[in-house]
Amino acid sequence: MEAFHFSMSRVKVAVLGATGSVGQRFIQLLDHHPFFEVTHLCASENSAGKTYGEVMKTRWKISSDIPAYAKNLVITTPDPAKMKEVVLAFSGLDSNIAGEVEKNYANAGIHIISNSKNHRMDPTVPILSAEVNSSHLEVLTSQKTKGKIITNSNCTIMGVTISLKPLLDRFGIESVMLFSMQAISGAGYPGVPTMDILGNVIPHIGGEEEKAEIEPLKCLGKVENGKILHADFSISAHCNRVPVFDGHTVCVSVQFKKKPSREEIISSWKEFSGEPQTLGLPLAPNPVIFYREEDDRPQPRLDLDTGKGMTTVIGRLRPDPIFDWKYVVLSHNTIRGAAGAALLNAELLYKKNFLG
Amino acid sequence: MEAFHFSMSRVKVAVLGATGSVGQRFIQLLDHHPFFEVTHLCASENSAGKTYGEVMKTRWKISSDIPAYAKNLVITTPDPAKMKEVVLAFSGLDSNIAGEVEKNYANAGIHIISNSKNHRMDPTVPILSAEVNSSHLEVLTSQKTKGKIITNSNCTIMGVTISLKPLLDRFGIESVMLFSMQAISGAGYPGVPTMDILGNVIPHIGGEEEKAEIEPLKCLGKVENGKILHADFSISAHCNRVPVFDGHTVCVSVQFKKKPSREEIISSWKEFSGEPQTLGLPLAPNPVIFYREEDDRPQPRLDLDTGKGMTTVIGRLRPDPIFDWKYVVLSHNTIRGAAGAALLNAELLYKKNFLG
Amino acid sequence: MEAFHFSMSRVKVAVLGATGSVGQRFIQLLDHHPFFEVTHLCASENSAGKTYGEVMKTRWKISSDIPAYAKNLVITTPDPAKMKEVVLAFSGLDSNIAGEVEKNYANAGIHIISNSKNHRMDPTVPILSAEVNSSHLEVLTSQKTKGKIITNSNCTIMGVTISLKPLLDRFGIESVMLFSMQAISGAGYPGVPTMDILGNVIPHIGGEEEKAEIEPLKCLGKVENGKILHADFSISAHCNRVPVFDGHTVCVSVQFKKKPSREEIISSWKEFSGEPQTLGLPLAPNPVIFYREEDDRPQPRLDLDTGKGMTTVIGRLRPDPIFDWKYVVLSHNTIRGAAGAALLNAELLYKKNFLG
Amino acid sequence: MEAFHFSMSRVKVAVLGATGSVGQRFIQLLDHHPFFEVTHLCASENSAGKTYGEVMKTRWKISSDIPAYAKNLVITTPDPAKMKEVVLAFSGLDSNIAGEVEKNYANAGIHIISNSKNHRMDPTVPILSAEVNSSHLEVLTSQKTKGKIITNSNCTIMGVTISLKPLLDRFGIESVMLFSMQAISGAGYPGVPTMDILGNVIPHIGGEEEKAEIEPLKCLGKVENGKILHADFSISAHCNRVPVFDGHTVCVSVQFKKKPSREEIISSWKEFSGEPQTLGLPLAPNPVIFYREEDDRPQPRLDLDTGKGMTTVIGRLRPDPIFDWKYVVLSHNTIRGAAGAALLNAELLYKKNFLG
Repeated sequence: MEAFHFSMSRVKVAVLGATGSVGQRFIQLLDHHPFFEVTHLCASENSAGKTYGEVMKTRWKISSDIPAYAKNLVITTPDPAKMKEVVLAFSGLDSNIAGEVEKNYANAGIHIISNSKNHRMDPTVPILSAEVNSSHLEVLTSQKTKGKIITNSNCTIMGVTISLKPLLDRFGIESVMLFSMQAISGAGYPGVPTMDILGNVIPHIGGEEEKAEIEPLKCLGKVENGKILHADFSISAHCNRVPVFDGHTVCVSVQFKKKPSREEIISSWKEFSGEPQTLGLPLAPNPVIFYREEDDRPQPRLDLDTGKGMTTVIGRLRPDPIFDWKYVVLSHNTIRGAAGAALLNAELLYKKNFLG
Repeated sequence: MEAFHFSMSRVKVAVLGATGSVGQRFIQLLDHHPFFEVTHLCASENSAGKTYGEVMKTRWKISSDIPAYAKNLVITTPDPAKMKEVVLAFSGLDSNIAGEVEKNYANAGIHIISNSKNHRMDPTVPILSAEVNSSHLEVLTSQKTKGKIITNSNCTIMGVTISLKPLLDRFGIESVMLFSMQAISGAGYPGVPTMDILGNVIPHIGGEEEKAEIEPLKCLGKVENGKILHADFSISAHCNRVPVFDGHTVCVSVQFKKKPSREEIISSWKEFSGEPQTLGLPLAPNPVIFYREEDDRPQPRLDLDTGKGMTTVIGRLRPDPIFDWKYVVLSHNTIRGAAGAALLNAELLYKKNFLG
Repeated sequence: MEAFHFSMSRVKVAVLGATGSVGQRFIQLLDHHPFFEVTHLCASENSAGKTYGEVMKTRWKISSDIPAYAKNLVITTPDPAKMKEVVLAFSGLDSNIAGEVEKNYANAGIHIISNSKNHRMDPTVPILSAEVNSSHLEVLTSQKTKGKIITNSNCTIMGVTISLKPLLDRFGIESVMLFSMQAISGAGYPGVPTMDILGNVIPHIGGEEEKAEIEPLKCLGKVENGKILHADFSISAHCNRVPVFDGHTVCVSVQFKKKPSREEIISSWKEFSGEPQTLGLPLAPNPVIFYREEDDRPQPRLDLDTGKGMTTVIGRLRPDPIFDWKYVVLSHNTIRGAAGAALLNAELLYKKNFLG
Repeated sequence: MEAFHFSMSRVKVAVLGATGSVGQRFIQLLDHHPFFEVTHLCASENSAGKTYGEVMKTRWKISSDIPAYAKNLVITTPDPAKMKEVVLAFSGLDSNIAGEVEKNYANAGIHIISNSKNHRMDPTVPILSAEVNSSHLEVLTSQKTKGKIITNSNCTIMGVTISLKPLLDRFGIESVMLFSMQAISGAGYPGVPTMDILGNVIPHIGGEEEKAEIEPLKCLGKVENGKILHADFSISAHCNRVPVFDGHTVCVSVQFKKKPSREEIISSWKEFSGEPQTLGLPLAPNPVIFYREEDDRPQPRLDLDTGKGMTTVIGRLRPDPIFDWKYVVLSHNTIRGAAGAALLNAELLYKKNFLG
């Protein structure tokens, strides 16, 4: 990011849900951003009127300090009328309010980059994974509001979808079975009580398997007549919570249409790249996918920060006795799987001149 | 166990590998056992000649104290010639020596109940899971030694095999995909270094997937001409280590030959029972399988001790978008998956008069 | 407990705060109790009107199942007027309401055995640790209500107070410095968020050091003129939260008035016994204190269940370069430090005929 | 570090014990170092002859990758005769061999910067904490070998010693009682078995309390007649292992000679600085000490990386009912407490022209 010079006129942005886990990551990643200037931090009425530094003194959960720019911003409630100069809002809102608030912003002409699930299944709203389906941006014209809504996928299947994209394009996919071991940060804060997870695993995350079985299909689908059509393979998901801080690890078994060799799969991953890399976006990881040869990798503790948390790390590709191949994929759930993915989407919009 | 009266002449037994994790569990479970009296504890030369209490002072890792009977037994090396009155030996030996030592005992006419993998794939050695395949005992006559070797399965797939047995019998099975989250006690002591697993998961356990993909097929197979033929379905396994102390949790997807309903599956599990229950063996769990209706169970912390660690706990039965049904199964890896299963096997031999 | 026969007329009791962590322990420990019969379970309006089994289906956090007697009891709000036959109520209420509710019960003539802090510092309310200060029961006559309130101490210093009592009596104490490493269950449920404590320690627990520096002095004090006078030594406490499920470990340095030898201290501990042992109360541990000789004990995982969680485990007695001696003490915070201590207090009242 | 330009002639250095935990940190911190060029990596015969990258493929435990410069270096055994151009060696050797090997290097004229305990108590060997006692370098002339040995203190009391130095100078100290909660990385790799520490604490670390009670006194002492005299106050230490990955947290109670106010203590900490800061050494933290005002800080997870792991973080200063003041201090045990401290010492030697 150091190579970018600040333009005189960075795009003004707001962060909605600024006090939550995803909001905190947005604020961290937007520190000294070359394209965007955070002018508004929004949260609930409890926090409104106070500075972000004051409210977050005991609630900031990232190990680096609150960025200086954010400390003195006064929190407001998420009201588009109060922030007319804002062009784009990053939403880390809770799903129980995100649907309506995000719609208000879009109606007011402010673009929404959302990490919430609410609008993900609308066929005119892309689940945008910048390297995977930047072509889906064309459906934005089908949205009737002046502000457009772009979502990113559920954190769990972000890495899975990236791992599948180059394989789908070259070999076709019949079936995917996946088993996740998901970090506690995926549940936000306070999130999972320690009494539930210390020395334990929980083989259930509410609503997660449903999302994991459908969102990749939309993300990997095609645009026809201004709407997104889902890819035509099947996914079965087993989702589990484990006592890991950050990093979702997913075991994947894949049945292909055309049978690839081990070398073909690995080279597909190594060569995979997308518009973020072509455009040289600040947050674009390089490589997009890193394949590790060791027997026991990827692991959250050792591989989480690969590419500053934006690279998807894959390992253990081996034949599957039932399907064709199996492997393990890791991605950083609050960076690549949430705030980082959303910000990369915003960078893509900026560079492709969607922000006017 | 309290209801049994000690017979005047309990069968004399030895524990091989008495200082290891599985050995410790054997010693705990054999405390006040109605059928068996431990007369010999065997370990390596380093420990030989000292009392078990002395050697284990800082190495006993079970939260209850060392049983009184064991404390003053003097450890010997595992030499069958030194223990002529012993009828049966429980082996928790490390696989790098178990193969030969166990064979020595069998040659010397001492039966071996082994938790090691070495002889598991011999077609005349049953992988005995007492409720699942007690009929496999008939192959013992094909063993040429006077002492017979009986093994139990790998800890990971013990619960899986039990969960599959009643379904295989009623509906037939085409394919099973399984994904394990395995406790650190499965690696013995010192086992997994804390630096490798604290706040982490490791998506690899050496040799485990290979065992998980074949042992259930043998255990669920049939006897023909004095040899065990494997069941004819396929298994694909993803094995993972997680920071849980005891208790292996396995997610399972199953494709059936004949399609069962949810009710048929659950009733198959609830009704499942075997010879240990019929014979009223001391360690026989009742029920064999406990099905939990809650959304987020089984969990190691809450369900591990069901049936004193001998009951297999299942939950989350739900349709699988690719196969037919998926569910989660938990078993206690050092009790049901190791020492408890082995001891139950020995109890079965005793009651069926295999011990002379 | 098995030796007790149920009397025809067990004393009817209620559990207040029945859905919380301490309430759950009360319900578990009161299962098949020879003196007490639970007739009422009380909780907030949200739970009232439903059966305990229904409400607790996903909230019961103890690894054994909900006792059968409790499952079908219908929860009520804590109103003494609704439970006239109740003689005594166990309170695991949150401190924000315990003060008033407990007073209501006392006014209505129902005795309160409280685990809450609210009335602890009232000089006519004993902080009763049954082995330590049963003589403090005489101040109950100074309470003006018909029902009497008895509290037990904060979980952290329960074991410390027990360890100090025999030393104070024989050698006198000048100063005590203590450092705690406290389990997460001490914070109740949901309690400590996993994001705060996984792979971490928190060197602060709100209000805990204040309690740890004063409650032992009251508990170890004397009765004069119907009021409890505090013991006259000083305590300094450092309280810390650690990622342990159950069991508070406390490092203690003590300066004595009369200098004891190592043997004198250890024999004081080994010989320590109180009225619960004399009276043979069901929950009375025997021994009260267990001294372990190993270098690295006590540890929560290995020693927590000593005496079914009621024995205080001490180890590592060694000279202190500044004070006289230092040692480590462990007690089970939700049993000996909370529900078990409270129930033992109730048993003491019963046997001493305080319950009429 | 970026501001330094590589001189044409960096000093050639070796890392002894290069495959261990401390060795790995040395290698990481020496990557692109402006003063030092690593030319030799030394380990045991098992590893000798292979490249570092090959040997460490599955043993590198730091989350960033092995630095490129180290990957292709061929490991040798620690023999000074083989590395004549080497001026200085960083030793992360195990204490069972460090004593002799380090002496060999010193005899051969190669300076030793040691993290091992072996020579720490020699009165002509400084326990150097660069900000605390750079004046102790004058005793090096009392060492009879051509190469000089400089040690750094035990990881646990590094932060404590730094916290005490400015207070000792201004107010004088009578007594210090300290209680540590130490990370598992302090025990190296494989180190602590998971079965011993998962969900547990261990109130004992072999030899640690002895070191903690004496090393700070030497480090804070004075030089007289070419020897280091110990400071004249007393320390009592309670050392504990906790399930934290990196970061030792220590609770400290201090009795002063002259009684300071809270403000005087905090300003002493904030103003504390030493020669590393004056000389602008690459690894010198700024500030040396960071005082946090929040109630519940420092915590390993949130504060460990302050000053890239080189800053000592203090919090919770409050009156002590027995001594004068108590507080909590955190330092990064493998950076500030080991490899980082040692490298800072080497930087100090370089800038003060001790390396010729």
